[in-house]
Amino acid sequence: MDKLLLHSMIRAFLREDVGRGDITSESIFSENEMGSAKLVARDSFTVAGVESVAAEVFKIQNPTVICVDAVEDGTLSAPNLPLLTVSGPAVDLLKAERVALNLLQRLSGIATLTAQFVEKVRAYPVRITDTRKTAPGLRVLDKYAVRVGGGANHRFNLTDGVLIKNHHIAVCGSIKYAVRMVRGEIPHTIRVEVETHTLEQVEECLSLGVDIILLDKMTPEIMSKAVRLINGRALVEASGGVNLKTVEAVAMTGVDIISIGALTHSAPFRDIGMDWSL
Amino acid sequence: MDKLLLHSMIRAFLREDVGRGDITSESIFSENEMGSAKLVARDSFTVAGVESVAAEVFKIQNPTVICVDAVEDGTLSAPNLPLLTVSGPAVDLLKAERVALNLLQRLSGIATLTAQFVEKVRAYPVRITDTRKTAPGLRVLDKYAVRVGGGANHRFNLTDGVLIKNHHIAVCGSIKYAVRMVRGEIPHTIRVEVETHTLEQVEECLSLGVDIILLDKMTPEIMSKAVRLINGRALVEASGGVNLKTVEAVAMTGVDIISIGALTHSAPFRDIGMDWSL
Amino acid sequence: MDKLLLHSMIRAFLREDVGRGDITSESIFSENEMGSAKLVARDSFTVAGVESVAAEVFKIQNPTVICVDAVEDGTLSAPNLPLLTVSGPAVDLLKAERVALNLLQRLSGIATLTAQFVEKVRAYPVRITDTRKTAPGLRVLDKYAVRVGGGANHRFNLTDGVLIKNHHIAVCGSIKYAVRMVRGEIPHTIRVEVETHTLEQVEECLSLGVDIILLDKMTPEIMSKAVRLINGRALVEASGGVNLKTVEAVAMTGVDIISIGALTHSAPFRDIGMDWSL
Amino acid sequence: MDKLLLHSMIRAFLREDVGRGDITSESIFSENEMGSAKLVARDSFTVAGVESVAAEVFKIQNPTVICVDAVEDGTLSAPNLPLLTVSGPAVDLLKAERVALNLLQRLSGIATLTAQFVEKVRAYPVRITDTRKTAPGLRVLDKYAVRVGGGANHRFNLTDGVLIKNHHIAVCGSIKYAVRMVRGEIPHTIRVEVETHTLEQVEECLSLGVDIILLDKMTPEIMSKAVRLINGRALVEASGGVNLKTVEAVAMTGVDIISIGALTHSAPFRDIGMDWSL
Amino acid sequence: MDKLLLHSMIRAFLREDVGRGDITSESIFSENEMGSAKLVARDSFTVAGVESVAAEVFKIQNPTVICVDAVEDGTLSAPNLPLLTVSGPAVDLLKAERVALNLLQRLSGIATLTAQFVEKVRAYPVRITDTRKTAPGLRVLDKYAVRVGGGANHRFNLTDGVLIKNHHIAVCGSIKYAVRMVRGEIPHTIRVEVETHTLEQVEECLSLGVDIILLDKMTPEIMSKAVRLINGRALVEASGGVNLKTVEAVAMTGVDIISIGALTHSAPFRDIGMDWSL
Amino acid sequence: MDKLLLHSMIRAFLREDVGRGDITSESIFSENEMGSAKLVARDSFTVAGVESVAAEVFKIQNPTVICVDAVEDGTLSAPNLPLLTVSGPAVDLLKAERVALNLLQRLSGIATLTAQFVEKVRAYPVRITDTRKTAPGLRVLDKYAVRVGGGANHRFNLTDGVLIKNHHIAVCGSIKYAVRMVRGEIPHTIRVEVETHTLEQVEECLSLGVDIILLDKMTPEIMSKAVRLINGRALVEASGGVNLKTVEAVAMTGVDIISIGALTHSAPFRDIGMDWSL
Repeated sequence: MDKLLLHSMIRAFLREDVGRGDITSESIFSENEMGSAKLVARDSFTVAGVESVAAEVFKIQNPTVICVDAVEDGTLSAPNLPLLTVSGPAVDLLKAERVALNLLQRLSGIATLTAQFVEKVRAYPVRITDTRKTAPGLRVLDKYAVRVGGGANHRFNLTDGVLIKNHHIAVCGSIKYAVRMVRGEIPHTIRVEVETHTLEQVEECLSLGVDIILLDKMTPEIMSKAVRLINGRALVEASGGVNLKTVEAVAMTGVDIISIGALTHSAPFRDIGMDWSL
Repeated sequence: MDKLLLHSMIRAFLREDVGRGDITSESIFSENEMGSAKLVARDSFTVAGVESVAAEVFKIQNPTVICVDAVEDGTLSAPNLPLLTVSGPAVDLLKAERVALNLLQRLSGIATLTAQFVEKVRAYPVRITDTRKTAPGLRVLDKYAVRVGGGANHRFNLTDGVLIKNHHIAVCGSIKYAVRMVRGEIPHTIRVEVETHTLEQVEECLSLGVDIILLDKMTPEIMSKAVRLINGRALVEASGGVNLKTVEAVAMTGVDIISIGALTHSAPFRDIGMDWSL
Repeated sequence: MDKLLLHSMIRAFLREDVGRGDITSESIFSENEMGSAKLVARDSFTVAGVESVAAEVFKIQNPTVICVDAVEDGTLSAPNLPLLTVSGPAVDLLKAERVALNLLQRLSGIATLTAQFVEKVRAYPVRITDTRKTAPGLRVLDKYAVRVGGGANHRFNLTDGVLIKNHHIAVCGSIKYAVRMVRGEIPHTIRVEVETHTLEQVEECLSLGVDIILLDKMTPEIMSKAVRLINGRALVEASGGVNLKTVEAVAMTGVDIISIGALTHSAPFRDIGMDWSL
Repeated sequence: MDKLLLHSMIRAFLREDVGRGDITSESIFSENEMGSAKLVARDSFTVAGVESVAAEVFKIQNPTVICVDAVEDGTLSAPNLPLLTVSGPAVDLLKAERVALNLLQRLSGIATLTAQFVEKVRAYPVRITDTRKTAPGLRVLDKYAVRVGGGANHRFNLTDGVLIKNHHIAVCGSIKYAVRMVRGEIPHTIRVEVETHTLEQVEECLSLGVDIILLDKMTPEIMSKAVRLINGRALVEASGGVNLKTVEAVAMTGVDIISIGALTHSAPFRDIGMDWSL
Repeated sequence: MDKLLLHSMIRAFLREDVGRGDITSESIFSENEMGSAKLVARDSFTVAGVESVAAEVFKIQNPTVICVDAVEDGTLSAPNLPLLTVSGPAVDLLKAERVALNLLQRLSGIATLTAQFVEKVRAYPVRITDTRKTAPGLRVLDKYAVRVGGGANHRFNLTDGVLIKNHHIAVCGSIKYAVRMVRGEIPHTIRVEVETHTLEQVEECLSLGVDIILLDKMTPEIMSKAVRLINGRALVEASGGVNLKTVEAVAMTGVDIISIGALTHSAPFRDIGMDWSL
Repeated sequence: MDKLLLHSMIRAFLREDVGRGDITSESIFSENEMGSAKLVARDSFTVAGVESVAAEVFKIQNPTVICVDAVEDGTLSAPNLPLLTVSGPAVDLLKAERVALNLLQRLSGIATLTAQFVEKVRAYPVRITDTRKTAPGLRVLDKYAVRVGGGANHRFNLTDGVLIKNHHIAVCGSIKYAVRMVRGEIPHTIRVEVETHTLEQVEECLSLGVDIILLDKMTPEIMSKAVRLINGRALVEASGGVNLKTVEAVAMTGVDIISIGALTHSAPFRDIGMDWSL
């Protein structure tokens, strides 16, 4: 993650949670009263966002805060495992606490769910990827957590990837015409992906030299046929309500990529707290 | 929700998802080609953010988009229930689609989970409230969804509410001293709330005329004792890992407020799609 | 005051006054030519914003500027009393000078006027508070100066406090209905305040358990009656054109709070200059 | 005033005062409940900022608000004179009220004080101007109010005017050297002004062809001598603690411009209220 | 170009050029005095940015400005050809004039130079593309103008395209290792491009299945050999100081893409004026 | 150039070019891998923006980057002359490279063209100035480069200078009326400039005591007559398509200022590269 970008996001998040100040803590602590605390896992999960995000939150709230003993992103935690030690003005630790935890808990949730999917398909040469179904404003972080969990990223936004969907095809009248229109306009550095729902559409894509063929909401049986038909002539992506129970069956079809919205839209927070050492 | 604030948030979310443009759709559609589509529930849930948020997304992407037939926020959906009809330049509908859906799906998730909690305690004179455990940058929306679901909002940020927690008390040496320091500094329009873990602390709060007493991670038995002890002299809030199984037992203790982080930090997206009418 | 917030305000103020540069000073001084100067009181007043604000202005203009010998906010100055010594690149001292002085002079004006009101009612257990009648864009600073002068703050904005006014009551038909509507919507952490103009309205408020009763533009006689009527069952606030001549009479009525718009809307600048040591 | 600039300022002011919404009014009014009110002068003063500023505040809060019957800026008000009638959603009128009044009251204060100075020197061919002693963030508005009051504006910021002051001269060793350094660097569209304290300095300026000579804190006697000495060869500006009692004596010396910080730094709010027509 | 993005850029450009207002025009024109003018080509060139950009500038300065008779972007102009007619408040036309012209003149310059390159290679199946050598802050516009001129866009920024350059290879020790590291990290929607300087490097790329091979600063002879070697197994891009004299020789080598920095970094403004109809 | 302003511009430029990160370099380099490189001139030209701009770009991308051995702005380069050495995390050097070069190459182009004009008129007491024909968003930098090249700046924007043009005069009916309207409104620190096309207009300006007379698109013969007519009673500026071939003839007429749009609108990039020391 680019730091300049991350920092401006964190500043906005602190504004939201701190407002014009912490009226409780500022009433009790003088500006320079020091404190020290640990962020501690309360459970087992894949950690994401410790030094990369949570520590940055504390340091942006006050650059004199010192963050040490960070576990590496991707570590599997255990109950009571300290993840990060922060020391500095108590009032700033308290102001940064909630933002740091909210981010760390969300990102660890995403990384953990991703790691569970990745584990399920470890035996197959397949990539688990995210989608654009992220929390608005948090995409760069959500997608970072997917990578921490062992997944890969799909396109970031509508500008840096092409995906010709049903509605585009319907309007154009054919995949052929839609692909031709797109190819004339986009940078040569970007691949063309087409969403298909039938083997006929897959064949049409192959005849056009489409780079990536998305098999959307197909059964594993049809997917297997599609993979054999494609036979390495395009990357093959599967999507459509894949879950932890069905992901292995999808991987077995031989697709190259499985994209899963749930990674970012429905991963619950993981349990992490902040313990003070008085 | 204040519209000026909402609009600036939506503009940022569109920038994130649209980037510099939708290279697929802009290649296929001319700027003025029209389209029409419906946002449709795929399942049963409490709807939040239809006219209030999703319709605003489409209208900010292009003010000529027309949004009609919005169901009211708070409606219980059913599979295939149309929630909103949007008509306008197809390329703008496509650009706004994902942001509108991501928000609508998240907010409906929060409203639905809140409504489930509210339903569980319908027989009791208790308020279900949220916490500050929201997705950073989305708090104003997350808290709106809680209200749609029948819940109420706790303080928005560290400036507009006082909560004297463990660590404040530990540093001050006593609740008494902490309360006194805070009262001298805060506006008289804001109540003082203190987090307690024992009945002794509850008694100390009562002797100080604390406005709100938070019973944190107590058993229902201890809570019941605390409620009897307080006997209407302060508002009583319960918190600490309350879930759908335990919430009724907590409500039975007679507390006034139950605050639940999960409302906003772990509600999964609800299933909503966008169907085009070609 | 939260530093992250303060710094972004100061940056905007410097942009306004410095524009794209100081064409006079940049023509005369090289970038690294050093200088030193003192901010000096020309008169007697309550100082506000020295280290907290003025020093920050210089350090934001150039982080290498050194600020020493700051008198504490709240100090009573005398003519020729040095308030702050600044040293660093002369061109940056000159660029920051006017913004630092404008803020320091304004805040000292507010603190001084507040202290004059506070002094008048020193014998009474009453709080002098500000209102929302601040200079737009400067509220966080204006309200800080009120605290420096010994006053307290009323609600900061329309979100973090409730005040049911005449027009709300008129539209609702009764205080009762207005209070009920508000109570259902607001966080439990915020008190409900109602503006009253008659003893009947005061009684209606008492019957509803309103937290704060505002006595607006009443005579001291009526106020005294209201205070006796209320008898500790609600906080009592007086407002309406209170000035230095009338404030003691208002305090004698026994109200808890006197809110005064003039503190922030009509306090003149106090006289402060910047003297160079060549 | 440029509207694009004004609008972005007003948006920030509304954010400050409204926060995330008006929790009182939003509890009581539905979004579309209509209302109508008048801004009314409570006293006699020179009005500034009615259609130009206050009406814009209402229209930015909600573009459907209708503003009619605005008195012209510069009008002399009388008690109970309606200044502006606003109609629209009541909740938006209430949200915009305080910002609109705070600006209108401040600007009318500045215009009134300016008009008083202008009136005192009506018999003399002299310009009353402001300084950079404005409320930070409000300069563009403060200086507009000065013009409404019949005054003129001095330079807006450090970039668009040259003023060689004491310290510049001291560092350069002579006015001559300072002027030469500045002339080589600045656009030819900008005049060079030099601050003087003695007749010798005035003579030095004349010999250098300086465009504007500032007579700072001189007695009227010395000023008169300076004016005779200059004899039309430069514009002559007087400054330094000029007040309503001394301004005519300064004007009688024959100076072209009198600049007065108090216009913007110490003009009290004028009394204006908002009366609802139920 | 996405309008929301374009509009925020234009607002910033107007702020830069208009500042706080046009002191000349605002002194002479009342706010509502109307005017009408035409943007007119003074020479022959490929027009870019008329309705898409220049008209937007006028409409953002004042939404009541009416823009008609716009020639289409891509049109070849002739001396005195009217490009756009604008009507509205004269003061706003004058405020928007320079920004509109500066953009229109720059973009027409880029489109014209691009069209000249495209014309030179019309007989060859080759794409002329831009680079990242644009004016900072103007990339989205500069690249639009390239498309208007018949060229295509290379990657927009460092995030949406991969280009493994000399220094990356040197640090990794081999192309192989560099490609492997990159492939593991990037979205599958993005192609991998490698910069080569020798035929050996080209061969190494082929063996790795690199998607795009950049032939940097090679002679046409070596390029021809490279193209034959690649033989359709990768896209081939040529770069390195290509100009109007050499571009055809490069195209003859059979490369697919020729990228040219000069399109955006050195195209002179085209001559366009604004003629008023009094 | 003011650093606070420059830094916010550079941050925006980096966002444009870096996007969310450099996916190539971040795949290959760890965050702390160090590198060192030199910015090197490939040709002879007047250098502008080395320490003042390019070094700032690297330091804003990462404050730990060290920049040494900067040649001074205004230096005449030679092929292979190192301009700046940068050392720090390789990934940050790569992220900052293109923005630093794009700015340095553009500014050096402008400085070089300016220096060529200045050289042509070295024998005459005339100032070469820029215009408002700059790249939108880059004016503060473009105008800095003009100064580096030995030129001077004209007004920066429409607020800080007056130029009464044809259309203003036409609408007013006469220069006299236009000048009078403007003089009543503008700060006394700003000169009044009038555009003229005939000797009659020049005479009208003289009779009004106009400060600066612009001779627009006149022949050198007419210009000479105008200069003799003016005879020192006003500054004289020449404009209108002046180029390197005609500039000396214009200077010979005795005008004080020659303003040239091409300085900023059509100066090509100068050739500068970045060489890594592995």
